[in-house]
Amino acid sequence: MSVEPVLIAGQWRASQASGTFQSDNPVTKAPLPEVYPISTWADVDAALSAATAAADALRRTPPEQIAKFLELYADVIERDAEALVAMAHAETALPVKPRLAEVELPRTTGQLREAARAAREGSWLLPTIDTKLNIRSCHAPIGPVWVFGPNNFPFAFNSVAGGDFAAAIAVGNPVIAKANSSHPGTTRLLAVAAHEAASAAGLPSGTVQLLYRTSHADGERAVSDPRTAATGYTGSRSAGLALKTAADRAGKPIYLELSSINPVLMLPGALATRGEQLVGEFATSCLMGTGQFCTNPGFVVTLAGPATDPFVSAVAEKFQAAPVGTLLSCSVAESLDKSVQKLVTAGARVLAGGTPGGGAGYSYANTLLTVSGQQFLSRPEVFQTEAFGNVTLVVVARDADQAAEVLARLEGNLTGAIYSDTAGSDDALAARLGAILRQKVGRLLNDKMPTGVAVSPAMNHGGPYPATGHPGFTAVGIPAALRRFTVLECYDNVRPARLPESLRDENPTGTMWRLVDGSWTQADVGR
Amino acid sequence: MSVEPVLIAGQWRASQASGTFQSDNPVTKAPLPEVYPISTWADVDAALSAATAAADALRRTPPEQIAKFLELYADVIERDAEALVAMAHAETALPVKPRLAEVELPRTTGQLREAARAAREGSWLLPTIDTKLNIRSCHAPIGPVWVFGPNNFPFAFNSVAGGDFAAAIAVGNPVIAKANSSHPGTTRLLAVAAHEAASAAGLPSGTVQLLYRTSHADGERAVSDPRTAATGYTGSRSAGLALKTAADRAGKPIYLELSSINPVLMLPGALATRGEQLVGEFATSCLMGTGQFCTNPGFVVTLAGPATDPFVSAVAEKFQAAPVGTLLSCSVAESLDKSVQKLVTAGARVLAGGTPGGGAGYSYANTLLTVSGQQFLSRPEVFQTEAFGNVTLVVVARDADQAAEVLARLEGNLTGAIYSDTAGSDDALAARLGAILRQKVGRLLNDKMPTGVAVSPAMNHGGPYPATGHPGFTAVGIPAALRRFTVLECYDNVRPARLPESLRDENPTGTMWRLVDGSWTQADVGR
Repeated sequence: MSVEPVLIAGQWRASQASGTFQSDNPVTKAPLPEVYPISTWADVDAALSAATAAADALRRTPPEQIAKFLELYADVIERDAEALVAMAHAETALPVKPRLAEVELPRTTGQLREAARAAREGSWLLPTIDTKLNIRSCHAPIGPVWVFGPNNFPFAFNSVAGGDFAAAIAVGNPVIAKANSSHPGTTRLLAVAAHEAASAAGLPSGTVQLLYRTSHADGERAVSDPRTAATGYTGSRSAGLALKTAADRAGKPIYLELSSINPVLMLPGALATRGEQLVGEFATSCLMGTGQFCTNPGFVVTLAGPATDPFVSAVAEKFQAAPVGTLLSCSVAESLDKSVQKLVTAGARVLAGGTPGGGAGYSYANTLLTVSGQQFLSRPEVFQTEAFGNVTLVVVARDADQAAEVLARLEGNLTGAIYSDTAGSDDALAARLGAILRQKVGRLLNDKMPTGVAVSPAMNHGGPYPATGHPGFTAVGIPAALRRFTVLECYDNVRPARLPESLRDENPTGTMWRLVDGSWTQADVGR
Repeated sequence: MSVEPVLIAGQWRASQASGTFQSDNPVTKAPLPEVYPISTWADVDAALSAATAAADALRRTPPEQIAKFLELYADVIERDAEALVAMAHAETALPVKPRLAEVELPRTTGQLREAARAAREGSWLLPTIDTKLNIRSCHAPIGPVWVFGPNNFPFAFNSVAGGDFAAAIAVGNPVIAKANSSHPGTTRLLAVAAHEAASAAGLPSGTVQLLYRTSHADGERAVSDPRTAATGYTGSRSAGLALKTAADRAGKPIYLELSSINPVLMLPGALATRGEQLVGEFATSCLMGTGQFCTNPGFVVTLAGPATDPFVSAVAEKFQAAPVGTLLSCSVAESLDKSVQKLVTAGARVLAGGTPGGGAGYSYANTLLTVSGQQFLSRPEVFQTEAFGNVTLVVVARDADQAAEVLARLEGNLTGAIYSDTAGSDDALAARLGAILRQKVGRLLNDKMPTGVAVSPAMNHGGPYPATGHPGFTAVGIPAALRRFTVLECYDNVRPARLPESLRDENPTGTMWRLVDGSWTQADVGR
């Protein structure tokens, strides 16, 4: 049996493994041929030491070289696109077209190139200069970063190619990627591409490293190791919170993206005036990617009224009529069934689906459930159970007061959406309920489904706990996402020649935005 | 016995107390007459409920009204300055002049007025607008904030008047202040002033609240309560880390300022060319405020050489000759003695002082200790023991390599300073050792003592763990200090009338800096 090597200190080398694992094809349920190692602490230790050396070297590496790497990497991904897409499709069952080849891969290379621009241009540093007191500060790389990627975006959130990776690297940090166990092959191919680009760009050898899996105990030890500076994690709540506990105890920043049911508020006027149109828009968003998006609308709040039942029934019909997609893995299918059983046992009524199978391989019938507002309020924790996949729960509140109570009981979420009558009949209700929903979510939408997460400087892909670990940070959007992996460094009366370039009087790029004596400017200091 | 009331929900009311305490006068060691309650959970619970209501109301309160409050409060503090200074002097023994009346009180009112300007002007929000995608985001108040103030700044870091208070309020959050037990009377007078100003400004009644003390268990429960949004804490490491553990477990942001020994690196060329001048500068900084500053230089690294022994001996003489100040409290004196004993037991040699007493009331001889680089490296944890007060440890490294090793073993600190020859003879050494020191501190200084912490937008009063809980945030400096108490809120396709004013096309203040399509501007969108 040949076991895939790990990437440590610039070398693809045999893992000091405690065991092996394989991923399987979600359509055939058959294991894929490649065998991956489960690393022992020896691998983690070696990766951390190499990352420490790389972090030091990267502090002396010009931003231009880091930008070059990110661009080369994007080029190599495009050159190898066919193999990458084929592997990702085999491991995740996500459609080759449009999803993998035409949407997710271009998004990934786009993110890498945008991160390159940010690295080169430098405004992400937030250089702040007080000329009177000669105190100057800026953000700076934090050091070795662990990235744990999720199962649902094999490219765009991949631990060795996705948003967290690009953000940590653009800032000048080395990354140790922990592959998601459901797509190790895709991650391996991406790491091969990253390694090629990093070598060509002449980056320090420990800048990009890859392990496939460790024990949970070693994972917790890794994020709290003295050599670790920070961690980015996207995935299940239970695993994320275990890492958070370990990192917090050691005083190590950890940025988590955990569960989210993404409440959608459908107001009466919207349903009355354009209910039919919304049926399609809503059902499409719910079932896109077989519901396996972090921003999938899994929870809808409606008010009882003449247009509500027809809307809900029509959505149920759409769910029943739509093809059943393949889920990402056996564990996603099992966990989805468990969540549905939990909701049904608590009293949710099944309007569509509710049973495993129905599609190719790992699958679950498109499922629409419903409860009354009163039912929800009797067990708000249970009825907020995340059912990751093609399952949505509709809450029908008796009236506005009850809808307000329902929203007030929500946990933190990534997104929340409000659909209201464009002619204004819902405005008072939207104002009242919107104020409550605003406090529960990172991104508030109007008349738009939450499933698209644009890479925009204004994006917030974050939100209150437990959607994430801190309500002030976003995982998507440059430059804000970069600053998660930084420290704030201040220079007080430091001699000009010893200042970082971004804090000298001369603007080093000519385009870098700096806050000089309270005003943002691209000019040199003293101009 | 008359027990002072607590300030809850806009009323000075009798505490539901489990006991009482008094502070004492550090000079006379006699208890001061006022008796303060130790609150039970009933008080905490009531304050949290009032803060929750206030947080909602504050979200609808114009920034102008919050700014007005901060300015009125500064005015009232100035009006009541004499009584405030007298009480603070009685409770802390800090000199009336210049310290309390001429330095700390003006700094405090200055901070409040600067926070008012920031609230009114709004650039702290970092409004970010993507006009193409119509995605807009900004920072927003996080909700009820607990502030735990330290013992050493009865005004400028007071939980109901200092930097954390001003930052949390300016953003639009209610504050529940937990008084420092060593100056409850000063805190009471400040809260009276704050309450008067808040009432005059018409702020919601739970905006400013005050409890004097709780059990440790109730403190931990308070920072992790579902109604709490965030906490600011400045104080001892052990108490701070207990609160951090509780807050972390509940997913609540907590901003800590803990211990720091503030390493100072005295390079050979500096000592050779201006050693005598540095003796005075250094000793003054060490003994200022009887060494009770968070940025007190408690740890010096020198290299063995012809100018080193004379420097160290001269500093020891200065320490012996200088008057011995009064310490803030009995516990500061006890803890200082304990720290010195720990250092001496581990092998530190006493060059000056080393014994309790010598000044009025609670006091400790000005103490200078020394160890070799080798000794330090044999027990780096012990020799980094913070001795909060007028005690400094000098490490004499054999050579540059050993000095580098010493710096590499340092924990995170707030500040680090490098003194080097102005003619350039130390430059290579400064570059090598400075690169190591840079990673260990929040603020790096050249040829300047760390004890001054200017209120500047470029200041970083923060640093790597365990100096603080997160290396990306500062407790001093506006606007950065404000953003600790915020969440990031995104508006995606939200109708214009429903946007917060800062994100509408028109710039609401005309001077607010906003990042529009990648460029910082004060103009309206579309101009």
